[in-house]
Amino acid sequence: MAYEKRQMQNEAHLSFNICHLLFTMIIVMKSRATTEQISSVVSRVESLGYRVHLSRGEETTIIGVIGDDRPIDREQFELLDGVEKTMPVLKPFKIASRDMHPQDTLIPLNAVQVGGPQIAIIAGPCSVESRQQIIEAAHAVKEAGATALRGGAFKPRTSPYSFQGMGEEGLQLLAEAREATGLPIVTEAMSPDQIPLVEKYADVIQLGARNMQNYALLNAAGDARKPVLLKRGMMSTIEELLMSAEYILAKGNTQIMLCERGIRTFEKYTRNTTDINAVPVLKQLTHLPVILDPSHGTGKWEYVGAVSKAGIAAGADGLIIEVHPDPTKALSDGAQSLKPEKFAQLVRDIRRVAEAVDRS
Amino acid sequence: MAYEKRQMQNEAHLSFNICHLLFTMIIVMKSRATTEQISSVVSRVESLGYRVHLSRGEETTIIGVIGDDRPIDREQFELLDGVEKTMPVLKPFKIASRDMHPQDTLIPLNAVQVGGPQIAIIAGPCSVESRQQIIEAAHAVKEAGATALRGGAFKPRTSPYSFQGMGEEGLQLLAEAREATGLPIVTEAMSPDQIPLVEKYADVIQLGARNMQNYALLNAAGDARKPVLLKRGMMSTIEELLMSAEYILAKGNTQIMLCERGIRTFEKYTRNTTDINAVPVLKQLTHLPVILDPSHGTGKWEYVGAVSKAGIAAGADGLIIEVHPDPTKALSDGAQSLKPEKFAQLVRDIRRVAEAVDRS
Amino acid sequence: MAYEKRQMQNEAHLSFNICHLLFTMIIVMKSRATTEQISSVVSRVESLGYRVHLSRGEETTIIGVIGDDRPIDREQFELLDGVEKTMPVLKPFKIASRDMHPQDTLIPLNAVQVGGPQIAIIAGPCSVESRQQIIEAAHAVKEAGATALRGGAFKPRTSPYSFQGMGEEGLQLLAEAREATGLPIVTEAMSPDQIPLVEKYADVIQLGARNMQNYALLNAAGDARKPVLLKRGMMSTIEELLMSAEYILAKGNTQIMLCERGIRTFEKYTRNTTDINAVPVLKQLTHLPVILDPSHGTGKWEYVGAVSKAGIAAGADGLIIEVHPDPTKALSDGAQSLKPEKFAQLVRDIRRVAEAVDRS
Amino acid sequence: MAYEKRQMQNEAHLSFNICHLLFTMIIVMKSRATTEQISSVVSRVESLGYRVHLSRGEETTIIGVIGDDRPIDREQFELLDGVEKTMPVLKPFKIASRDMHPQDTLIPLNAVQVGGPQIAIIAGPCSVESRQQIIEAAHAVKEAGATALRGGAFKPRTSPYSFQGMGEEGLQLLAEAREATGLPIVTEAMSPDQIPLVEKYADVIQLGARNMQNYALLNAAGDARKPVLLKRGMMSTIEELLMSAEYILAKGNTQIMLCERGIRTFEKYTRNTTDINAVPVLKQLTHLPVILDPSHGTGKWEYVGAVSKAGIAAGADGLIIEVHPDPTKALSDGAQSLKPEKFAQLVRDIRRVAEAVDRS
Repeated sequence: MAYEKRQMQNEAHLSFNICHLLFTMIIVMKSRATTEQISSVVSRVESLGYRVHLSRGEETTIIGVIGDDRPIDREQFELLDGVEKTMPVLKPFKIASRDMHPQDTLIPLNAVQVGGPQIAIIAGPCSVESRQQIIEAAHAVKEAGATALRGGAFKPRTSPYSFQGMGEEGLQLLAEAREATGLPIVTEAMSPDQIPLVEKYADVIQLGARNMQNYALLNAAGDARKPVLLKRGMMSTIEELLMSAEYILAKGNTQIMLCERGIRTFEKYTRNTTDINAVPVLKQLTHLPVILDPSHGTGKWEYVGAVSKAGIAAGADGLIIEVHPDPTKALSDGAQSLKPEKFAQLVRDIRRVAEAVDRS
Repeated sequence: MAYEKRQMQNEAHLSFNICHLLFTMIIVMKSRATTEQISSVVSRVESLGYRVHLSRGEETTIIGVIGDDRPIDREQFELLDGVEKTMPVLKPFKIASRDMHPQDTLIPLNAVQVGGPQIAIIAGPCSVESRQQIIEAAHAVKEAGATALRGGAFKPRTSPYSFQGMGEEGLQLLAEAREATGLPIVTEAMSPDQIPLVEKYADVIQLGARNMQNYALLNAAGDARKPVLLKRGMMSTIEELLMSAEYILAKGNTQIMLCERGIRTFEKYTRNTTDINAVPVLKQLTHLPVILDPSHGTGKWEYVGAVSKAGIAAGADGLIIEVHPDPTKALSDGAQSLKPEKFAQLVRDIRRVAEAVDRS
Repeated sequence: MAYEKRQMQNEAHLSFNICHLLFTMIIVMKSRATTEQISSVVSRVESLGYRVHLSRGEETTIIGVIGDDRPIDREQFELLDGVEKTMPVLKPFKIASRDMHPQDTLIPLNAVQVGGPQIAIIAGPCSVESRQQIIEAAHAVKEAGATALRGGAFKPRTSPYSFQGMGEEGLQLLAEAREATGLPIVTEAMSPDQIPLVEKYADVIQLGARNMQNYALLNAAGDARKPVLLKRGMMSTIEELLMSAEYILAKGNTQIMLCERGIRTFEKYTRNTTDINAVPVLKQLTHLPVILDPSHGTGKWEYVGAVSKAGIAAGADGLIIEVHPDPTKALSDGAQSLKPEKFAQLVRDIRRVAEAVDRS
Repeated sequence: MAYEKRQMQNEAHLSFNICHLLFTMIIVMKSRATTEQISSVVSRVESLGYRVHLSRGEETTIIGVIGDDRPIDREQFELLDGVEKTMPVLKPFKIASRDMHPQDTLIPLNAVQVGGPQIAIIAGPCSVESRQQIIEAAHAVKEAGATALRGGAFKPRTSPYSFQGMGEEGLQLLAEAREATGLPIVTEAMSPDQIPLVEKYADVIQLGARNMQNYALLNAAGDARKPVLLKRGMMSTIEELLMSAEYILAKGNTQIMLCERGIRTFEKYTRNTTDINAVPVLKQLTHLPVILDPSHGTGKWEYVGAVSKAGIAAGADGLIIEVHPDPTKALSDGAQSLKPEKFAQLVRDIRRVAEAVDRS
């Protein structure tokens, strides 16, 4: 019911339609473009239902294209004779944009409203490996102060020979861990047909970095009735992340947390490069909460503490951290997992940084 | 039947098992590692069924781990006390490796054996847009000398507001185009449930760059009985491409063409950076045929000709090129599509380069 | 004298001044920008000697800034109240642009006019290591058909503990090698004070990738009276390469060859990623000749042949290739150096590809 | 005198020589390598003064190469017949390594010991533009709580048509600003011949990102008697940054601050991607202080605050921030410069975060 209500409020807000006319695109003509070429471009623009505003310089003509907020495909215009280039005026995402929805979207995770003043800490092992492991991990992260439990039942692995997760059994164990600790569950779905299953057991459906542009999966998550944690692809731009969120939003699910988890660069000391800039950029562009994943962002447990604190200082609404009762025996991601006692210390450190930036 | 036979030949070959003992990994201990730490690492290695070979230096001890060709998870060892780092000895892919299958895999596409001396040219529009468009395109590329027709019925688009493809109707139109011209059809499947549908209509199942690590899709393609054209993710390493091929191979489908389609870099003049190095690297590492996509690799039609010729000169087994009867009206990828007459000229140019490198 | 004449011809051409008024920049105002904000931006633009053209939409106002071809600093305008963003209309480079100098610049290297129909092949060891080594290399590459001899006397090395080159003695040995074979010499200068020394001995002054934005060095090369081979930085954009060429051109030295030598990406199988797209992009944007360096572009000799042929097929005007009499004993870059006999075979292969694209 | 003493202490420390024998490299032979090939590799290794340790597997032989701490060129061995690959054991930098110098290097900047518990804040305009501007900026940042004043007299600019700095006059104005405020001066030298001039006026010599691998400049800075602030190249790895520091250290100047200023990636919303991971990585690998530059790291003033706080939370020893009395009139980098009042607020915010991580 809570979910319905939040959705309704968001949709009410989103139903506000921009019906004014807007510049959507600018076309720069070549310096030697002929009058015929200019007319031909103008006709094409008008034939698509847009209006134009011409600026004639001594050498160059610039065509402003005026329309509503429908996105326009600039590519087709770049091919017309006499066109030098085109430039966008409008942002390509709408529902995700803070322009349309200035106040922060809040997503309840037990007692915490993710996106509000309180920091959410989602913690747990990379994979569910056994009842003992996940129950032990759940108790440990709960005690340390975590907000929710993470753990994968379906694992996207580069190698077909690596451990692929426990499947539905893993989901059942996660549900048991929730029973035992009261912690809500965050776990990944890897294909559209897994969405209903994950939705049944989990509190938050995670979509992984490799699947950020798996559109069938995004559409399925858009139909789900549980919040989504959407991870940025390791070589996706911030704009593409927002466009993927837009897929889910356009289907009607407005409960999305965006997760920065490191991008791929030429640097080799760390597994990925945490894009810390993405935190303030996302907070400016969108109303959706922003979660940082320092475990994947660095790939080495030694650096998780420093980058966790950096994320909170930069304004992230939460963290998702890999914690394993015995990292040396983890079936995946051991190198970036914290031991429970180190995690407990980190939570204390994070609390101090959170207070220093007026969060809690 | 041909498909069964090719599969069988490949599998016969692949059933050759490496049962010898091999160095799989090297563990470098820290210079101050204690004897206890060394013993403890050795015990752990042996408990997993591996054997060790110790090299003691005055300061550093190096542990060679000996096993069969099972992949080993190095991460867990990096966390043990006293370990400085680990290094792989074996390649992580097996069935895709030329070490295990020295001769080239050949995939018939009409008269051409892809991977053999003849160059395959797959051409057509980005998307199927209408009967007229696809039939016209099919005739045009056939006349120009193409080997197969490409065209998307399911389109992965960054924006939920962009044209998403005609779906099954598009597949039917592609089948009509094959009827009309005799050209085999290459078209994309975006989710596991689309595989049977695409398999029914198409001659080659394309898996797109954004889905290179969509493991549910790879597994489904591994079960299909049609060849697969697997595109490298724009953010993926060559090794990851081979690991994704390994998913399909491990399921038993050995008919895979690998496609280099440009990677994402900091350069802005082009949409992607064609990784031309990947052509000789892949030809050395694997027995699977290599196709180059100069349309996505550059993102601009002006550069498609130069990069097509470069691809053939570098040793690619084929090209996949976007051709549209009227690029300015294309619903997607117009900017990188060639007009039929430019494509016809390009095929003539390619023929000359092919001959200069003893291909045809 | 030849050098003076070429310079004069180019300068005569370049003295043609664009004195017409041009759109140089577009300023997009925020949708809620006030009239005062718009007026204030207009005043600022006019106070700098530019004229404006206003396009008022219902919500957004767009300001076209009209001036001559002086480059304008867009940044300062992005900070003014009410400004959403600015977009460039003019390219930031002028003398390097093909717009201003449509015909190809030709640079004589012995019998070859680099930039003309004939392919230039510059070959030799990474470093000059001894008289015997360089003389032997010079004879070998000459016999194989090279146009010029390369070899470094000053070596930029990542480590202070690596061989740093023979210095002036190396330059003298290169001069000897020219005596012995007639091959012109291409060699690197690493600092402004080395320019006169290198100019004295060499026929072409090479500026290395790490120094592409060493502006003191670019200015010194602009004052030199020998042609310059300017390598693209390993993480520099094509536009930055052209801006660096613009430094040299603006000082009056118009004899520049641009060299694509691979850029840095996430891929690990090769040392760099050859940006083959850069070849047709540069040929379109500029009149300066384009040389490809497949040795650094790949970092492994096995791939040099394939990428050399690709470069020629893509339209490069020449190649610069590392060749060493005994690569296993090279003091630098052995892994990417060809043996003389492999190089001789490659020259024969290149000749065939060159003919297939109407070069020689 | 203080400088001499600090240098001596460091050198005393550094004179401790590692004379033990160490594994420096591992050579993995191909699985089909012959006994002759193995012997031949062993002979080559021994002829260079190294010892070997052979590990023979059933298929693969692994050769451990044992020597002192001299760096070894692995490349030449990769070319020998029968060699599959080589792997380094030792780090390529020595004097910069924390292994050799476990305690933090401290560099006094007025009252602050950079590298100690107190955070250094270096602030000021990108360029010195006039007496009024720099004196005003100096007073403003001093009042806000800055430790030192930055400002460029020599400016590396992508375009030859952009403002190139005031040269020596700028240095004199910086000296005046120091007189007026007592703030030490940090300013850039762009070529070896500028080092003595900059050394004369400045308290810290800055080496810019584009010059990180300008080895003539590094050598000159190594001979200088003032501390150096060395910026990471936008295209450089952390290891390369440390190798460049090693050039300066090897010349005897041990007073180096390392500066992370953002690297180049595919992301377009920000000018660079701040590599926040580099902060804990550098603190682990080296004893040199680490400074973060959030102005270049983001390129937009809106994000400077968030990333500054992140840097301190991650463990940086200081920040270098662009502040301009009127950013809209700045001759360079206006878009990323803070106004003095925003900077003053930021210093207060930073203080709180610093305390939360036990710094001041």
